Amino acid sequence: MDKFILEEQIRRFLIEDIGHGDITTDAIFPADQEGRGVFVAREPMVVVGMDQVAATVFKLLDEKVRIVKTVQDGKRVDTGEVLFEIAGPVVSLLQGERVALNLVQRLCGIATLTAAFLKQVKGLSVILTDTRKTTPGLRMLEKYAVKAAGATNHRYNLSDGVLIKDNHIAACGWSIKDAVRLARSKVPHTVRIEVETEKLEQVQECLDNNVDIIMLDNMTLDTMREAVTLINGRALVEASGGVTLKTVRKIAQSGVDLISIGCLTHSAPSVDISMDWQQ
Amino acid sequence: MDKFILEEQIRRFLIEDIGHGDITTDAIFPADQEGRGVFVAREPMVVVGMDQVAATVFKLLDEKVRIVKTVQDGKRVDTGEVLFEIAGPVVSLLQGERVALNLVQRLCGIATLTAAFLKQVKGLSVILTDTRKTTPGLRMLEKYAVKAAGATNHRYNLSDGVLIKDNHIAACGWSIKDAVRLARSKVPHTVRIEVETEKLEQVQECLDNNVDIIMLDNMTLDTMREAVTLINGRALVEASGGVTLKTVRKIAQSGVDLISIGCLTHSAPSVDISMDWQQ
Amino acid sequence: MDKFILEEQIRRFLIEDIGHGDITTDAIFPADQEGRGVFVAREPMVVVGMDQVAATVFKLLDEKVRIVKTVQDGKRVDTGEVLFEIAGPVVSLLQGERVALNLVQRLCGIATLTAAFLKQVKGLSVILTDTRKTTPGLRMLEKYAVKAAGATNHRYNLSDGVLIKDNHIAACGWSIKDAVRLARSKVPHTVRIEVETEKLEQVQECLDNNVDIIMLDNMTLDTMREAVTLINGRALVEASGGVTLKTVRKIAQSGVDLISIGCLTHSAPSVDISMDWQQ
Amino acid sequence: MDKFILEEQIRRFLIEDIGHGDITTDAIFPADQEGRGVFVAREPMVVVGMDQVAATVFKLLDEKVRIVKTVQDGKRVDTGEVLFEIAGPVVSLLQGERVALNLVQRLCGIATLTAAFLKQVKGLSVILTDTRKTTPGLRMLEKYAVKAAGATNHRYNLSDGVLIKDNHIAACGWSIKDAVRLARSKVPHTVRIEVETEKLEQVQECLDNNVDIIMLDNMTLDTMREAVTLINGRALVEASGGVTLKTVRKIAQSGVDLISIGCLTHSAPSVDISMDWQQ
Amino acid sequence: MDKFILEEQIRRFLIEDIGHGDITTDAIFPADQEGRGVFVAREPMVVVGMDQVAATVFKLLDEKVRIVKTVQDGKRVDTGEVLFEIAGPVVSLLQGERVALNLVQRLCGIATLTAAFLKQVKGLSVILTDTRKTTPGLRMLEKYAVKAAGATNHRYNLSDGVLIKDNHIAACGWSIKDAVRLARSKVPHTVRIEVETEKLEQVQECLDNNVDIIMLDNMTLDTMREAVTLINGRALVEASGGVTLKTVRKIAQSGVDLISIGCLTHSAPSVDISMDWQQ
Amino acid sequence: MDKFILEEQIRRFLIEDIGHGDITTDAIFPADQEGRGVFVAREPMVVVGMDQVAATVFKLLDEKVRIVKTVQDGKRVDTGEVLFEIAGPVVSLLQGERVALNLVQRLCGIATLTAAFLKQVKGLSVILTDTRKTTPGLRMLEKYAVKAAGATNHRYNLSDGVLIKDNHIAACGWSIKDAVRLARSKVPHTVRIEVETEKLEQVQECLDNNVDIIMLDNMTLDTMREAVTLINGRALVEASGGVTLKTVRKIAQSGVDLISIGCLTHSAPSVDISMDWQQ
Repeated sequence: MDKFILEEQIRRFLIEDIGHGDITTDAIFPADQEGRGVFVAREPMVVVGMDQVAATVFKLLDEKVRIVKTVQDGKRVDTGEVLFEIAGPVVSLLQGERVALNLVQRLCGIATLTAAFLKQVKGLSVILTDTRKTTPGLRMLEKYAVKAAGATNHRYNLSDGVLIKDNHIAACGWSIKDAVRLARSKVPHTVRIEVETEKLEQVQECLDNNVDIIMLDNMTLDTMREAVTLINGRALVEASGGVTLKTVRKIAQSGVDLISIGCLTHSAPSVDISMDWQQ
Repeated sequence: MDKFILEEQIRRFLIEDIGHGDITTDAIFPADQEGRGVFVAREPMVVVGMDQVAATVFKLLDEKVRIVKTVQDGKRVDTGEVLFEIAGPVVSLLQGERVALNLVQRLCGIATLTAAFLKQVKGLSVILTDTRKTTPGLRMLEKYAVKAAGATNHRYNLSDGVLIKDNHIAACGWSIKDAVRLARSKVPHTVRIEVETEKLEQVQECLDNNVDIIMLDNMTLDTMREAVTLINGRALVEASGGVTLKTVRKIAQSGVDLISIGCLTHSAPSVDISMDWQQ
Repeated sequence: MDKFILEEQIRRFLIEDIGHGDITTDAIFPADQEGRGVFVAREPMVVVGMDQVAATVFKLLDEKVRIVKTVQDGKRVDTGEVLFEIAGPVVSLLQGERVALNLVQRLCGIATLTAAFLKQVKGLSVILTDTRKTTPGLRMLEKYAVKAAGATNHRYNLSDGVLIKDNHIAACGWSIKDAVRLARSKVPHTVRIEVETEKLEQVQECLDNNVDIIMLDNMTLDTMREAVTLINGRALVEASGGVTLKTVRKIAQSGVDLISIGCLTHSAPSVDISMDWQQ
Repeated sequence: MDKFILEEQIRRFLIEDIGHGDITTDAIFPADQEGRGVFVAREPMVVVGMDQVAATVFKLLDEKVRIVKTVQDGKRVDTGEVLFEIAGPVVSLLQGERVALNLVQRLCGIATLTAAFLKQVKGLSVILTDTRKTTPGLRMLEKYAVKAAGATNHRYNLSDGVLIKDNHIAACGWSIKDAVRLARSKVPHTVRIEVETEKLEQVQECLDNNVDIIMLDNMTLDTMREAVTLINGRALVEASGGVTLKTVRKIAQSGVDLISIGCLTHSAPSVDISMDWQQ
Repeated sequence: MDKFILEEQIRRFLIEDIGHGDITTDAIFPADQEGRGVFVAREPMVVVGMDQVAATVFKLLDEKVRIVKTVQDGKRVDTGEVLFEIAGPVVSLLQGERVALNLVQRLCGIATLTAAFLKQVKGLSVILTDTRKTTPGLRMLEKYAVKAAGATNHRYNLSDGVLIKDNHIAACGWSIKDAVRLARSKVPHTVRIEVETEKLEQVQECLDNNVDIIMLDNMTLDTMREAVTLINGRALVEASGGVTLKTVRKIAQSGVDLISIGCLTHSAPSVDISMDWQQ
Repeated sequence: MDKFILEEQIRRFLIEDIGHGDITTDAIFPADQEGRGVFVAREPMVVVGMDQVAATVFKLLDEKVRIVKTVQDGKRVDTGEVLFEIAGPVVSLLQGERVALNLVQRLCGIATLTAAFLKQVKGLSVILTDTRKTTPGLRMLEKYAVKAAGATNHRYNLSDGVLIKDNHIAACGWSIKDAVRLARSKVPHTVRIEVETEKLEQVQECLDNNVDIIMLDNMTLDTMREAVTLINGRALVEASGGVTLKTVRKIAQSGVDLISIGCLTHSAPSVDISMDWQQ
């Protein structure tokens, strides 16, 4: 994660929630009153973001806040476990609470769902990755959560990876060959060329044109197995399209190298974390 | 919605997804190739964001994109319905696709869930509202979706509403009286004072201090009914805490004026919308 | 006050005044020369902004500047009193001087005028408030000064309060009823509905529609008294329009609850404060 | 004026006043309702800012607003004169009203005061200038107003002019010679060197060191006359310090070339302009 | 190139050069005076940036400027050729001149040097690429110029490519194996792994660990030839380090696939282009 | 240099090079591994930027980086000399390396070329200055480098100096008199008026109109000598136009007061500095 981007995002989130000032807290509390709060897990979860995210929220708000404890990224915890502990001016703890919780509940939700997927493919050599279906404005953080849980990231955005999709191919007159040739001649050699396919003829055309990564999009298990056999190690094979906790193991057993899963970021439910006040 | 904030946010989301340029599209397509695409509902949903959000994504990207059709905010549609149609340079349509979909899938998801809650309380006079449990960076848009579906918004942030919560009261030495007095003397007269209560004694203390809105937090249905009877129209009554589709009607029947529901924004699943290419 | 907004504003003000560098100071002074300066009141005034505003100017400019003394917000001082004392690199003290003085002279001017108004209504229970007639870009600071002097703030901006004005009503076909009904159904329940009235018929229409705050705009004293009698506690009553130090007490004696005063922020003369150099 | 800076400032002012949206107007008006408004002078004044400032407020808010009429910068008008006329969506006219008025009332106030000073020195060849005592964040606009009224601008900020003040000299060990020599050797040759003096000995030291502009700070009329005689055209002579409408002509008659006047920007009262609604 | 980044950069460059306004032009010219100007090549060069860069400078400054002619990216021109022609308000043409020229002189310089390198390797299948040794703040534009001249881009920045350099390896205890293994397990599968080597032993270690791209850094021609033989198509081979117009062909003939050349961006001299005024 | 501008620029440069994170370094190194690096001169040069520029790069990246040594601005060093030494987290040293080197190699290149020009005019009283032909986005830093090497700066931008060029004069109907009169009446008295001339008739017209600085643009040595004789101390004389190391002394000997040299900033080659790793 880039520190400058992280801090700028959190500063913006805090302004969104605090506006021109917290009129309740400012009215009630003297600036020098001290307090202590803990984030407590209200359900089992995989933790992410205490150290780099929640801590940054409070440090940006007030240098006088002390970070007492943070649970490590990727740790699995049970209900009741203390994930984060802070001490400092009451006003600052109360003002940062909502933004910090909104962030870590979402990130831990993603990490927890990612871990559930990983558990499904335990013992298999397949790699699970995220997609670009992230919450606008939160891509860096959400991809960080996926990685912290043990999966890996797909390309970050349109500038750092090549994925020739059905629409690209359509607009080229349905020739994978032309699209790949054009891409190969213009993009950096540091980037692999990936092509999305929907049937075996396209897989064959990819092989004929030395595509580096072949995406099998929404294929049946049978077709995927045929594709893996056809490719036979000559390209990386990535399965994609509506992958769920129920289908992921079967897909993995088809022999693909990678499975990309959109719901890791667009459908992970927030987990329940509360901030409890220590008198 | 504020136009300046909306445009600045969408510009930032586009930069997040496009980076320094779309290397795939730039390599494959001539700048002057034209195309046409439609957003299609893949499941029944309540629509929001075609006109102000999706259209802004493409207009900011390229003035040459033409918005051909947008379904109105709040409309309920079935699977297969065309929600949005655009025409213009292929390169721009492809570059805006992911950001536009990521946004409207989320917003329509919120609107659809909100409508489901509203259906549960049909015929009752209760008002349903959102909370501050929104996605960081997306509060304006998410609250817009809640409202478009027919519910109303709670306060926007810490600067435009007073909500004295348990932690505020705790830090005052457990006196609602003191907290309310301090708030009343310092905040604008245009703002109502709301206090969170967990038991009837606190409700009574609120009434003794002319609190404008009394929040009943995580109370049983019985206690809520008692509270409503006790308050007897002397304050607005808001129920809150873990409200679900299953519990919302019973809560409404207890006689409260409002019910605030965090999951409208923190747990609404994205709905499925795809962009189809028109040759 | 929100710390992020405050710091961003002061940073912008410093860039406005320093440009790409202070060519005079850079040419004359070695970077390590130390000095000490004091802000001195050149006339009696109510002080505001030493601690949060002037101190922030110098701390942002140079961490090595030490804030030696700051007079508390709201204190009334006489000519000659030292309001603020700083020590540190000469270059930084000289570069921050003008921005700090431009800010605090204006804020103390507002606080001093506000205190003069408050003195006029001494012994009466009326509340004095500011308006949205603030200097563009300085609203947060100017409203802070009004509050520090002992008055209260009106709504902050168009998003956190409802004030239905003559022009709004006109465009609705002169029906207060319709405008109020529309507003009530769409704005958060945390916000009171205020309506501007110019005659008693409108006051009655407000009462008929349960308006929370009735503004009496530019009414004569007699009409205001009639309105107060008519309203009889059923709504908050706010007087507004060309209020001066000479008229404010009479208006307050009419029985209104609040008086909003535009000149607090748009016409308060700057007070005279100088920065003296301590050899 | 720089267009980019102007637009960025006005955008910021609009966000300050509109927040996340105008909840009153959004609730009451349909987006397509059209209206027409005029700015009317409520007192005699010198006009500035209709064309570049007020028009920009509304154009940035909404491209559909049409600017029907703008009075030219520098024109003197009487009570009742229409200064500005716009037509377009009611919602946009109402949302821009306050920011536009807050700006032009202030700028016209500065222009009107500047014109009053110019009238006092009519027939004399003296030049009147502003200072750096401007409202933080509004320097470009306020200096524009001074110039539009017929006076000229002093240096813009610390980076584009050299003014060696008493504090600078003090910190150099009270040698004007050293300070001037250091400045001359390091600043661009395109910039004149100005020195602030408080007594005739300092004026002589300036002359001995070929200072380009000698500021006579807070001197008596007699001392100023002596200084002018002593300088005898060898440098530009600028009078400064507490200049008022009453004293400015006498100061001008002392023979100085320029008079700089802080109150043009820090103490000009806002003039009264209202926006009237055209049904 | 990303339009949002391009426009934001050019806006910043214009503010840098115009400051708070062009005091010379504003003083001399009426706003409505029209003119016409042409950019003329003062030496032979490869052109880049007329359409996307120079045109954007003037369009951002003033919508009323008309772009009459732009020479296409990549075209080779002779002395005297007209590269760009604009017409519109004199004030805007003069204000944009310096920024536009400063940009295109630099970009055409890079394109011209790139073309000179390409000419040296004519007939060979080697690919020439740039590096990260670009001017801070101008990377997107400079890499665009390299590509427009016919070479290709290396990775854009630290987030979109993996290059394990000598310092990385050193800090891992001199084991390429460990560094590659760590990278492979954590970075997206869409990215190739590149390793910098200085001797043949390291080349062999790369081959043993299936490195995708092997950089031969500052090797002699003989060693490079040995490395190419050793690698034998099992990885892409990139030569790097102090490559000049004199050495590039010999290096290419060693059989490497790519040559990366820092001086394309850090040492290309600006070419001479002037803006001539058409009366 | 302005600290706020400097820090904002360097932050932007770091984001340009780091993107959303350094995927190589993050994969390979533990966050707590410490290291030490030195910048070493690979050729003789005049140093600039170690203290204010390179140090700021690393301090902004990571507060834990310690600046061990910085060579002073303006010092001349030989090959092999250590210019800068830092210690701290390996990850931060590696992430800042490229941006810091890209900046200081360019700035030292400018300083070295500036010093070479100064050496050519040794013993003469002429002043050498830069121009506005700087790299877009780097003007403050590049002008700083010119000054650190011992030359002086010309005006910074269009807002802080008046230079009436051939195109300005042309558009006025070829009357220097009119252009000068207009400028004099509108620009601050703190600014000198400079006019560009191409022949002696224009020089005479400048003298007739009391121009402060006369630029002799691209004149022959003979014409320049005539011009100097004609001007005879009545204005500052600045030579300009294609000045090189070979021609600068002859031009200086013509008697001009100043010589402005565009290539100092637009054509100075980067010098060679490497970052060596200390195990």
